[in-house]
Amino acid sequence: MRYEESVCEGRNPVIEAFRSGKTIDRIFVLEGCHDGPIQTIIREAKKRNTLINYVKNTRLDQMSETGKHQGVIAYMAAYEYAEVQDILDAAEAANEPPFIILLDGIEDPHNLGAIIRTANLCGAHGIIIPRHGACGLTAAVAKASAGAINYTPVAKVTNINKTIEELKEKGIWFVCADSDGENMYNLNLTGAIGLVIGNEGKGVSRLVKKNCDYTASIPMKGNIDSLNASVACGVLAYEIVRQRSI
Amino acid sequence: MRYEESVCEGRNPVIEAFRSGKTIDRIFVLEGCHDGPIQTIIREAKKRNTLINYVKNTRLDQMSETGKHQGVIAYMAAYEYAEVQDILDAAEAANEPPFIILLDGIEDPHNLGAIIRTANLCGAHGIIIPRHGACGLTAAVAKASAGAINYTPVAKVTNINKTIEELKEKGIWFVCADSDGENMYNLNLTGAIGLVIGNEGKGVSRLVKKNCDYTASIPMKGNIDSLNASVACGVLAYEIVRQRSI
Repeated sequence: MRYEESVCEGRNPVIEAFRSGKTIDRIFVLEGCHDGPIQTIIREAKKRNTLINYVKNTRLDQMSETGKHQGVIAYMAAYEYAEVQDILDAAEAANEPPFIILLDGIEDPHNLGAIIRTANLCGAHGIIIPRHGACGLTAAVAKASAGAINYTPVAKVTNINKTIEELKEKGIWFVCADSDGENMYNLNLTGAIGLVIGNEGKGVSRLVKKNCDYTASIPMKGNIDSLNASVACGVLAYEIVRQRSI
Repeated sequence: MRYEESVCEGRNPVIEAFRSGKTIDRIFVLEGCHDGPIQTIIREAKKRNTLINYVKNTRLDQMSETGKHQGVIAYMAAYEYAEVQDILDAAEAANEPPFIILLDGIEDPHNLGAIIRTANLCGAHGIIIPRHGACGLTAAVAKASAGAINYTPVAKVTNINKTIEELKEKGIWFVCADSDGENMYNLNLTGAIGLVIGNEGKGVSRLVKKNCDYTASIPMKGNIDSLNASVACGVLAYEIVRQRSI
């Protein structure tokens, strides 16, 4: 397993990272800085849909591991992202109805890693994550995935609602996890399915929920609000496995 | 929610912690140190089954957060432990057959916290963890449990096999999670049950597995070996919930 360096600091290293075709998730740039190399980096970042954060020098100093950030720090994917089509192709190659896990804003790398691990073992064909406001494929995620990141494709999309709509047109049904949904044991979760898991704190966002065909709840007895996001994903994914197997 | 300080350094603070009745999971003592206060601490630790590690001064220096360890550092439970009987009483009070989760060496605080959270929501009456070689109720666990630690009793036992034998005499059946077990969908998991989840890396230990009535496996399709321990626990716990509900 390879856990690549996921942070890159300084003007030339960041420009080189872009030129080598690495997937850069996010860059932090010194605000008000307009010189040539920084403008080149911002141009490349815009071209590739990299998130750009303009921050003060003190923030960059805090973030810097080398102490030589020269006004720019880039966070790269530890692993390459797949395309949504790769996930559909994997389902077709396996001659199975697509089973996709969509994460609507998972922030914790342990959770994302554990979910990739679950996806690999439950037979999901891939994972879709949003470009904004979510954890990307960092080295910590790779480690938590226990190697599953090498096998299960993870695609990153700009607009998760648009992706859901496009996949609906291909005959995939979407079910999101929410405590006010229908008991999962009473839903039909067979067939081509996209399972949507929300953010750790906020759950599934309003628009995504509205876009889903069903809302599924895990029966809960206790005193607290919700399961850990990766546990909830596992419980729902295996209810899909169970229903597909009978 | 309270997340108590979980580390205590120095002779008087550690003696005070013992006297106040706090649950101390483990102490690190300077090896070869025989003076009065240290002997008092060791005596108290032995009386209460606290783990004692004798270490060199350099190790204590590394561990110390205050720089003033005076030859002793104690790790306390952030929360109080329950007794096994409290778990049985909780089942009886709810007029339900006991549903207990036994953890055979979970080391990661995120996993332990997520499992306490799962136990609370799936209706398990409590969790049993071993005294040795496992994560205790630290502040990190309390945080990861999202408050569930305040509701779900966690008991700590010296010998998990002895506890299993004692609970078997009370009519509880034990099922452990292992990939070479019987498919969980084909097992009868209703009735009074103890679900045993093994260590993150090593799984369930040989003797514990031998002591269990059944071995259950989660059906797996993918390329890697196992689910994350807290996800596996969630999937199995909810298979028990499902079988109990039909």
